[in-house]
Amino acid sequence: MTFFVDVTVRGYELDTQGHLNQAVYLQYAEHARWELLRAAGLPQEKLLADGVGPVALEVTVKFLKELRGGERVRVSCRFDYGKGKTFTVAQQILKEDGTVAADITGVAGILDLSTRRLIPDPGGRLASLAKDPELLSG
Amino acid sequence: MTFFVDVTVRGYELDTQGHLNQAVYLQYAEHARWELLRAAGLPQEKLLADGVGPVALEVTVKFLKELRGGERVRVSCRFDYGKGKTFTVAQQILKEDGTVAADITGVAGILDLSTRRLIPDPGGRLASLAKDPELLSG
Amino acid sequence: MTFFVDVTVRGYELDTQGHLNQAVYLQYAEHARWELLRAAGLPQEKLLADGVGPVALEVTVKFLKELRGGERVRVSCRFDYGKGKTFTVAQQILKEDGTVAADITGVAGILDLSTRRLIPDPGGRLASLAKDPELLSG
Amino acid sequence: MTFFVDVTVRGYELDTQGHLNQAVYLQYAEHARWELLRAAGLPQEKLLADGVGPVALEVTVKFLKELRGGERVRVSCRFDYGKGKTFTVAQQILKEDGTVAADITGVAGILDLSTRRLIPDPGGRLASLAKDPELLSG
Repeated sequence: MTFFVDVTVRGYELDTQGHLNQAVYLQYAEHARWELLRAAGLPQEKLLADGVGPVALEVTVKFLKELRGGERVRVSCRFDYGKGKTFTVAQQILKEDGTVAADITGVAGILDLSTRRLIPDPGGRLASLAKDPELLSG
Repeated sequence: MTFFVDVTVRGYELDTQGHLNQAVYLQYAEHARWELLRAAGLPQEKLLADGVGPVALEVTVKFLKELRGGERVRVSCRFDYGKGKTFTVAQQILKEDGTVAADITGVAGILDLSTRRLIPDPGGRLASLAKDPELLSG
Repeated sequence: MTFFVDVTVRGYELDTQGHLNQAVYLQYAEHARWELLRAAGLPQEKLLADGVGPVALEVTVKFLKELRGGERVRVSCRFDYGKGKTFTVAQQILKEDGTVAADITGVAGILDLSTRRLIPDPGGRLASLAKDPELLSG
Repeated sequence: MTFFVDVTVRGYELDTQGHLNQAVYLQYAEHARWELLRAAGLPQEKLLADGVGPVALEVTVKFLKELRGGERVRVSCRFDYGKGKTFTVAQQILKEDGTVAADITGVAGILDLSTRRLIPDPGGRLASLAKDPELLSG
């Protein structure tokens, strides 16, 4: 299952060339990840209270289309777990007509905030804390 | 008439204390101003093409309530013109239950982008460029 | 004594009109406040560990000069305490030639992070935690 | 030749976990690119006046080390041109002890702002506009 959130491009997010600043694509992607976690019952304060936090290890953004002020876009998010301490995050930013404005692929993990080390089985740990664990897996 | 836009607090906008960062209140207010202008038929690219741009001269923010990740807020915006080169901007950020999270009062003008000086009668100039000038005045 | 930090205007902080975005003035001011606290021996993690955090209650910004990409500015910060739970924060953003680009005046307090209420005698509390309390007062 | 700029991590750039937000790594990288262009005699306003602008097509960030408030980091930038319309951008964020906090590799081009298309020979075009073209090539 792929989760998504809708976002309106805000005027202050544009750069001197009049299009969405490149770093804001990553902010939109992060917003969708937090909203997925929240929808699954894992808001930031719950994760902090449990002593864990998601951490980005690597991300690749392909910028395919410019975005303009006021445009409405849809940001998708899907987590795919394997057997290791890391998992992949597949995201897209879609324009209203369905064209892909950006492809964002990441590698992430779950940090133990006291030891500052990645925990094993991140998917299992998140699922055990969540109210609605189905959202957490592809 | 008071214009408004709805905004969801994004996870990356929170600070180390877990609430909305203070500068982001100003970003929300700016977003509402651009959306009001866009709704009136004045997107940024049209204003730039006409050689004018809004400029903030002074702003006061009263921070009344903390905001948390995922909260939905409404940001209002009303322009009040007098006889001078500046006008006042009255904005509020409202929580879903109607309580006021922030009061934002500003003084603004319209800059001639070539001379970098404020133009006279900003309300009249904006109205002459707009498709829906009613939105532009309180 | 007035504390200050030097900041270079970054390219991504400019808006479509090519000058520093208005909300970034507040970010610069916040940066100077954190750096003052750090210089006094109070980095964010120490304050969090002590269960307190600074909170902005009100701020007024007077935007006096545009700032351009690459400009170097100096951001000052001075805390003035009275007898109540709040104190005033006086800040300026100065251009290299000494002209004032912005005047920023705020009212702040120190929040008890567990009760979410302002503590009494914020100046005394900060001074008791600091290594170099002289920086903390005007 | 590899260009670099020094940056201090600002308090408002930290996230709820107390370390530098992931999207800000990209902002630092963008800052270094603009500063390289400025140092070569190509500030944003000159590029805009010439009707061209740099555009990011793809970027990969490897997040290797957390960064904390107040840390001083060095951000490097090197452009490598081939024969096509795109070129690669190799950047690193280095901690004060020289360890690499992030590796950032991008593909970029130069946009003709009127046709919104990539121009051929971007390295040659930038060099022809620059005062100090040596900075523009690896």
